[in-house]
Order: sequence, then C-alpha cells, then structure tokens
Amino acid sequence: MRVASYLGNRRVVVDEGPRVPPGPREVTVAVAYVGICGTDLHVFHGDMDARVSVPATIGHEMSGTIAEVGEGVAGWLVGTPVTVMPLHWDGTCPACLAGNQHICQNLDFIGVDTPGALQQYWNVPADTLVRLPEGVSLRDAALVEPTAVAVHDVRRSGLVPGDKAVVIGAGPIGVLIATVAAEAGAEVVVAEIDPGRRASVEALGLRTLDPSTVDQVTWVESWTGGAGADVVFEVSGAAAAVLGATSLVKVRGTLVVVAIHPQPRPLDLHRVFWRELTILGARVYERRDFERAVELVASGAIPTSELISAVVPLDDVATAFESLEAGGAMKILVDVGLDV
Amino acid sequence: MRVASYLGNRRVVVDEGPRVPPGPREVTVAVAYVGICGTDLHVFHGDMDARVSVPATIGHEMSGTIAEVGEGVAGWLVGTPVTVMPLHWDGTCPACLAGNQHICQNLDFIGVDTPGALQQYWNVPADTLVRLPEGVSLRDAALVEPTAVAVHDVRRSGLVPGDKAVVIGAGPIGVLIATVAAEAGAEVVVAEIDPGRRASVEALGLRTLDPSTVDQVTWVESWTGGAGADVVFEVSGAAAAVLGATSLVKVRGTLVVVAIHPQPRPLDLHRVFWRELTILGARVYERRDFERAVELVASGAIPTSELISAVVPLDDVATAFESLEAGGAMKILVDVGLDV
Repeated sequence: MRVASYLGNRRVVVDEGPRVPPGPREVTVAVAYVGICGTDLHVFHGDMDARVSVPATIGHEMSGTIAEVGEGVAGWLVGTPVTVMPLHWDGTCPACLAGNQHICQNLDFIGVDTPGALQQYWNVPADTLVRLPEGVSLRDAALVEPTAVAVHDVRRSGLVPGDKAVVIGAGPIGVLIATVAAEAGAEVVVAEIDPGRRASVEALGLRTLDPSTVDQVTWVESWTGGAGADVVFEVSGAAAAVLGATSLVKVRGTLVVVAIHPQPRPLDLHRVFWRELTILGARVYERRDFERAVELVASGAIPTSELISAVVPLDDVATAFESLEAGGAMKILVDVGLDV
Repeated sequence: MRVASYLGNRRVVVDEGPRVPPGPREVTVAVAYVGICGTDLHVFHGDMDARVSVPATIGHEMSGTIAEVGEGVAGWLVGTPVTVMPLHWDGTCPACLAGNQHICQNLDFIGVDTPGALQQYWNVPADTLVRLPEGVSLRDAALVEPTAVAVHDVRRSGLVPGDKAVVIGAGPIGVLIATVAAEAGAEVVVAEIDPGRRASVEALGLRTLDPSTVDQVTWVESWTGGAGADVVFEVSGAAAAVLGATSLVKVRGTLVVVAIHPQPRPLDLHRVFWRELTILGARVYERRDFERAVELVASGAIPTSELISAVVPLDDVATAFESLEAGGAMKILVDVGLDV
C-alpha cells in the first residue's frame, strides 16, 4: 500500500509500505480522503519535531470505509463508511476520572502522537470509529473532524439563539465556527484582515468586518446597541487580536480561545475584571460533538464545496502542504483511495 | 461636622463642613468607622485623578447608624446600625437590563465617583443601606464591604466543598477570600512572597507557600495528586503571578481575576486552550454577597481583630494613608465617630 511519511525538515515522501492486519480491538480503515490542517502544516514546518518521531505518518481529518475487523470488535462490518475521532485517552489521569477524557492529561492525539491517516490502510482502535450515514459523500465527510472542533467551540461558548457573535479569523475553523454558530441561531460577524478570505466568507452569506480599516469596537457597540457581543471566538492566533478581543465582549460575555498561541499574549485583564468577562479555552471535541458534526455535514449545513479548495492524489501530498503554505487555499484534501 | 477631603497630589485634609439634610429617598448615616482600601490609596497617589474631582471625600468601607431619614424613605429608623453597599446603577444600560446592575456600564461607585464616608454625617440613597444585626461591633462591621468582595469572588468561582484553592496574594482581600473559601469547605493555600504577610496568614490557621523559594507548580501538583487546583484566585496584581497562575489550575479548572491590572498582562493562552481553563473576572458584589458578608462578620467567621492593624481618629486620616504606603499594615480603620 502507499504511505506518506514526514521525514523532518519540510520533507514528506510517499512510498510503498506493508499493510498490517488490525490488532485486537482494532479495525483497518481503507482511507478515502484526508484533509490537511494547520497542525499538519506545523509538523511539516518542523515546529512539532519534539513531539513527532520521524518517519511519521500524519493526518487526522479523514473519511473511509471499514476494510478489516480485528479480534474482539463487535458491531462493525466491512464496507461501512466511517470517520475517526482521533483521540485515545488513558482513562486513569485526574482529567479522565473527572469526565474530561477528551483532554486527558496524557492524550494520544492519533495522527500526531501516533500514526495517522495518510496511508491507504489505517489501523485504529474500534472505539474511535464514528459511523457515517448512507449516502454522505466521503469527500464531504473528511470535513467532519474540523466541523466537530467548531461544534465543540460553539457548545462550550454557551451561545443561544439570538446571540451576537464575533469570530476573529476566517481560516477553515473560523468559517466553520461562524457557520455552526449561525446554524445555532446566532447573528455572526467574521473579523478578518485578508480581503480574499473576507470575500470567501461573504460568498457563504456571512457578514464580515475588516479590523484594519474599521474601528471594530465602535462597530460592535453599534451592532449590539451599546452592549458588546455575547460571544467572541479568537481563532486568528494573532497577538493584536487577543489584545483587542476583550473590548468586543459585553458585560458577563464570553471570549473563547480556540487558536493556538505558542507564546504568552498580552491580555487586557482590567477589562476582564471590569466587565466580569469569562474566557474559556476550547480544545478538540467530545463524541457528541463528532456525532453532531456528522449530522451537520450530512444535512448539507456545512458548505463543504466552498471550503474544499483542491483535492490532490496521495502521491502529490507534498503539493498540498506547499499550496497551503503559499496561502489563498482554504482546505486541501488528499485523495488516498485507489480510485480517484 | 468634620470632613476629610482629598485635594490631589497626596494631600488629604480634615476640616469643618456643613451638615446637609438628606434629600428625598436618602438617609443620613452617622459614620462610625471607615476602612482604607487599595483603591483609596490609588486615589491618594493621584492614579485616579481623571475619575475623582477634587476636593473629594472618599471612603466606602464603613459602618454607622442612621441619623436622619429623608422624604419618601420607608422602613428605616434613626439609630439603626447599618453599612452601605456603595453602588448606584442607572438601571437602563444593557448590563442593568440583563440583570447585572452591580457592574452597570455607568456605575456610580459611591466614595470614588461621588462623595464617600470619610465625614461624620454621610447622605446616601436609602436603597444602598444594609442592616446590621443587633450586637455586631461597628468596628468589625467596617469589614463587611471587603468581605462582600471576597464572598462575591468565591461564589463566582463556583467553588464547592472539598475543592482545593490557591489564593495568590495575601493582602486584605486575599486573606478574606482564603477565609471565605475555607469557610465554604475548600482546602486553601495562600501564595505570598512577603514573609510578614505569610506569618499573618499562618497565624489565622491558613496554609501558605512562598513562590520565591518553592516551585509552586510542583507543590500544587503534589498537593492535588497531579490534578492541579480546582480554583485559583489572582489577588496580587503582579505580572509574574498572572503568567504563572494558569499552570496551577486543573483541567477545566477556574482562574478568577480579582486584582486590578492597569496594564495588559502576558497570559499563557496555550495552557488555557490545552486544559480548557475558565478565566473569570470578578468585580464588587451583589446584594446577596453583602448580606452573606454581614452574616459572616456577625458570626465571628471573619478574623476582624487580626485584620485590623490600627484604628486612627478622623483628624489623623493622613497617617492612615502613610502607614498603608509604608507597608506592613493589613487594614487600617478611621474612627469617624465623635466618641473614640
């Protein structure tokens, strides 16, 4: 079978590898599509070399069908369309014992910490499988994982119908959060400085503002009758966005930190105090988020065609990383299946 | 009557002033004791000159008895012992309309924005009065206001019996938060670098740690069986404390921002994301917090004698500010009454 491997130093190669039968409590998934996300790009750039041991097969946004069922696996049949919730927890740490397995203190994020989906046959624990409804396109289903991130972020924000939400940053996760929040009944504006991304967002029927030309505090004050936004999602990763974000939130409103900020960021704690704001970290998803994401993708609520900028065959996976680096692309899928 | 006035530039004078009868819906309180807090010290230092118009009579932590009842005031009798919840909201801003009057977007904090308690007869709106039980010492009751701050902070943190809480900073509010949290059933440790303050806290039977000599992350990990603290209260106002605080909190735990940070502070947002932390701003109090604070002071749960470092007569009010500046004092009360 064909397998992609990250070798360090911006090198990804695709080669032949042995197909291994599934172990006990595992299944083999014949991988159809894999989306490349920001984390994969960080790996490609070498930013995560301390965590990823080379050669590494990465990839965790995917769809496929069950190809083989290992010993001790019940309830799954060969041929069933699935996606994978790529989390494996230890079940014994304080976070797990408190019911927060999805952010286990020793979490194995499959596709980063252990081998991922950029291979034709992928062995995963059966309990990571999430069933796809009949008829859902496997191409679209590769977006279930990032959609589950957005579902988790919106659920955690406590957003209710009628709320006004600001999403800062219009990358794929920002657009998915805006979509899921709008679908949940919120009025949404996406703050984004890049004109191309703003145009993509507007093409989806979502409102945008350009914080480089508009005074966003005044804009949000006016939009909300002087109150401020109920919820703000920080999805840009930019220091300036964090510093400005607290001024957009209403008294007792919520700022959700979705983006990864590798460095400490200056935050206006006086505003946090003054308005009794809530700041919430939100990371990955729980199974209910994944299942809701499957529903949203299957129902057509997620604009998958607009989000998927390109589909490249597995043997060209390096071009997927290079296109994402070049900018302009939203989501690039890798077609891993034999029949493109 | 005698009145203290802040004149700007670290000058506070005490002079004779006219006693004014209460207006409609007001009462005159014969002030007994006034505590000087950090905010009053900021005013004295000129840090709040943009907000305070001189000459200004400040002071908002107080006790007294009703001396006169204005027109349209029902249910209050001359001679009743009271304290004052020094908040006056507009009732019409979005925060008020959403039920958050205590942090009204146009809040009048009485004693800062309008005249305060450092005068022998103080006119206040009748709806700011909080009744004191018979028999409670008026000296102790001057601590109701800062106790209400602590009650609010602990309530907002969501702390439950059995939780482990870290309080960073052992000024009066830090000690009160530690006391209220312990009284609510939490195990508490107070992190404080000043040895004198640590000794004061230990004398109250509370545990301390010195973050300048102990690795507080390791200490808290060990104390909590590897989980991290359920709740951390940031009461120090120090940048280094903020940066370290997020590492003390368990997965899905809470950091409460109590201190005033005039400048943006670097915060470890990666940790906020990774552990799905909650950061909450907490400011002033609601009436239920004030009423609970009265109960706590009246019951003896608050170590008022240990917290009150000195009582000075009104004519010596300047020395109260100077002693606080010099450090070492916890709470200094001004005795405003005629009979010291």
